[in-house]
Amino acid sequence: MAPRKKKLINQPENILGDMLAGFAAAYPDIVTLTASGLIVRSQPKAAGKVALVIGNGSGHEPAMIGLVGPGLFDVNIPGDIFAAPGAGRIVEGIKAAERGGGVLVCVSHHAGDLLNAQLALQMCAAQGIDNVEMVVLYDDISSAPKGQEPERRGTAGLFFVWKMLGAYAEQNVTLAQCKAMAEKIRDNTRTLAVAITPGTNPVSGEVMFDLPDDEIEVGMGVHGEVGQGRQQLVSAEATIDAMLPAILEDLPFQAGAEVLVLLNNSGSMTQMELFILFGTVAQRLKQAGISVYKTHIGPYATTQEMAGFALSLCRVDDELKALWDAPAIGANVRIVQA
Amino acid sequence: MAPRKKKLINQPENILGDMLAGFAAAYPDIVTLTASGLIVRSQPKAAGKVALVIGNGSGHEPAMIGLVGPGLFDVNIPGDIFAAPGAGRIVEGIKAAERGGGVLVCVSHHAGDLLNAQLALQMCAAQGIDNVEMVVLYDDISSAPKGQEPERRGTAGLFFVWKMLGAYAEQNVTLAQCKAMAEKIRDNTRTLAVAITPGTNPVSGEVMFDLPDDEIEVGMGVHGEVGQGRQQLVSAEATIDAMLPAILEDLPFQAGAEVLVLLNNSGSMTQMELFILFGTVAQRLKQAGISVYKTHIGPYATTQEMAGFALSLCRVDDELKALWDAPAIGANVRIVQA
Repeated sequence: MAPRKKKLINQPENILGDMLAGFAAAYPDIVTLTASGLIVRSQPKAAGKVALVIGNGSGHEPAMIGLVGPGLFDVNIPGDIFAAPGAGRIVEGIKAAERGGGVLVCVSHHAGDLLNAQLALQMCAAQGIDNVEMVVLYDDISSAPKGQEPERRGTAGLFFVWKMLGAYAEQNVTLAQCKAMAEKIRDNTRTLAVAITPGTNPVSGEVMFDLPDDEIEVGMGVHGEVGQGRQQLVSAEATIDAMLPAILEDLPFQAGAEVLVLLNNSGSMTQMELFILFGTVAQRLKQAGISVYKTHIGPYATTQEMAGFALSLCRVDDELKALWDAPAIGANVRIVQA
Repeated sequence: MAPRKKKLINQPENILGDMLAGFAAAYPDIVTLTASGLIVRSQPKAAGKVALVIGNGSGHEPAMIGLVGPGLFDVNIPGDIFAAPGAGRIVEGIKAAERGGGVLVCVSHHAGDLLNAQLALQMCAAQGIDNVEMVVLYDDISSAPKGQEPERRGTAGLFFVWKMLGAYAEQNVTLAQCKAMAEKIRDNTRTLAVAITPGTNPVSGEVMFDLPDDEIEVGMGVHGEVGQGRQQLVSAEATIDAMLPAILEDLPFQAGAEVLVLLNNSGSMTQMELFILFGTVAQRLKQAGISVYKTHIGPYATTQEMAGFALSLCRVDDELKALWDAPAIGANVRIVQA
């Protein structure tokens, strides 16, 4: 059966299984695909440490299969395309992750992910598995106003949480400390995204949204959710000037702050465009008296081949900088440690 | 001035300068942009060692600006979009790279790159700079038949040379040894690429080629050069089955061989598709009795937002495996060292 659109896949109904099998075959030293479809570390963490688990809809690769490995997650529970895994599978993931130090279930805030994680924790309690906590994470300033942060969506900026929480959970820390650290990083992180051309759903072959040739969507979510609305396509510089002040005001990030910056490629942006965009980000942050500790530019959470990017900032202190610089090996993400 | 197409840039005539400035601002620990537009290491290699230099047309990022750093290149001379840098700029790059151990100018085989590099070496000789050698590299089996390898184009598979030669040149080796090592890796590397949708030239805004909705181009070069011809779009599995035997027969890669595999994303392929494609590669190599030492999947040499991929294999021995596993930090490439 030929693909129904111009993507190189096999049978659409086998996308998830084919992808996971190929992914695990590519990085056997880092990840293993279990019989029940979990992605787990090939070298489990030492006994007694807190384990980190996340479930998510697939189609956003490298998120989150590519974020399992030393210094990152212990277990990922990949759901179907753009669909959260069910609670039963999350429970399986929790059991697979447990090393004796408890399990922190991380939730990137979307309705389905939250409901299934809540249900999974209830199921764990009913089964007598009680050393499990959940933390709900969000970063997208366009999806709810300031003051209603817990209503916001989780998007690319959560990479800051994944990287630094992952490093933290390699240490001799408790489950409660891990949850508090995740919240600390989340509460210092803000993201705003734009989309310029849509991706396609790989199963249905449908374009995820329409966007006129001269417009961009500001605040678009990772599944094509509408954000703050459409604006005229303008220059890279003008785009950053429309986005960055909103991010800075939201936390707020103020003069004297030190930040990590992520420019996440949502799919088919060229690196050329991302570097040009970052040039303006760097200038504007300098003008605002904010210093950049480290920068990441590339695909961390994608929406298929959607063209667009997310700009994320995380305010860091010495504790977070040390976690940022700690070793990590993701199966298909780049971690800068220079 | 608004962009003339749906890319987030500033003035098209400033693309190169804007990009290099943003890139260097993102990774100051790794790279520095010189006043004359070279990308050099922020921490130069120790005195006395062989330096590695390459010039290339821009628009293929991360190639080659992202490949300057410890364990990789010493200096990159970025040309204009899809245009080799002139000989005078290559001479500047050679002078900037020299650490007392001589300079190896690497050329990814394209007419403009080769001519300008040859002229640069003549200019060096005329100026009394005599510890400079050139090595011409190629890997694309579609661009000339077996037996005429030196006529072939340089494409994504040269990443194997960049990574392992970079590690080699950190050691106490001579210029002649470096050139021989580059040739050894080249002579064990083969690549075949396919394109499914075109990219656009970021300066002109023109689509680089047309391709019907149900066809792919096999053997396409990194600037949209025609390859072996067009074929019907088929499944991921059938695509690999059309490509891999040609690669295996060309070297030939035989049962018992150990290989590195690269699936290079030419721009807007999803990781999902690349993992699905790799699943078939892994199966077929196993069936052929060829073992995979390490796999890389991601963007290493792109053609703007062209959708497509290159499949590259490099046959390795113990010497090359050690070089593959040696430390390296590229400013915007991922090096797997697990």
